[in-house]
Amino acid sequence: MKARVTVTLKNGVLDPQGKAIEGALSSLGIEGVTGVRQGKVFDIELSHTQPEAAEAALKDACERLLANTVIENYRVEILS
Amino acid sequence: MKARVTVTLKNGVLDPQGKAIEGALSSLGIEGVTGVRQGKVFDIELSHTQPEAAEAALKDACERLLANTVIENYRVEILS
Repeated sequence: MKARVTVTLKNGVLDPQGKAIEGALSSLGIEGVTGVRQGKVFDIELSHTQPEAAEAALKDACERLLANTVIENYRVEILS
Repeated sequence: MKARVTVTLKNGVLDPQGKAIEGALSSLGIEGVTGVRQGKVFDIELSHTQPEAAEAALKDACERLLANTVIENYRVEILS
């Protein structure tokens, strides 16, 4: 079973890395970018056969390791 | 206009960060994870009004800054 976990910063949390990318894009002459926020994505393979079990394991993984829930949101998608 | 760019390692490229996460999940007692690969996600706001123009600008941004196309794939999604 394959899954994708996306971890993004919560609204209101400053993202200096995103700001730096925004500045770099502008320096490169790429116009029209008004905001960038960077997050992380994890492509995970699991041996579970039940999607519910896989999702529960991944939520546990997010809460305990993959995301800092004070400043980050996470989203779990079961792909196949 | 909002868009999401996802940058992931190509198949066959080693991902020590993913391996470390896999080991950490196992140490935490989260069972059933057989593979982890980490990538990056960029949530981008653009002032373009045409989706085609936004997509072209983002592909340019990926080729020149956001992705290392030797080892990484990228995917551009226009969200709204």
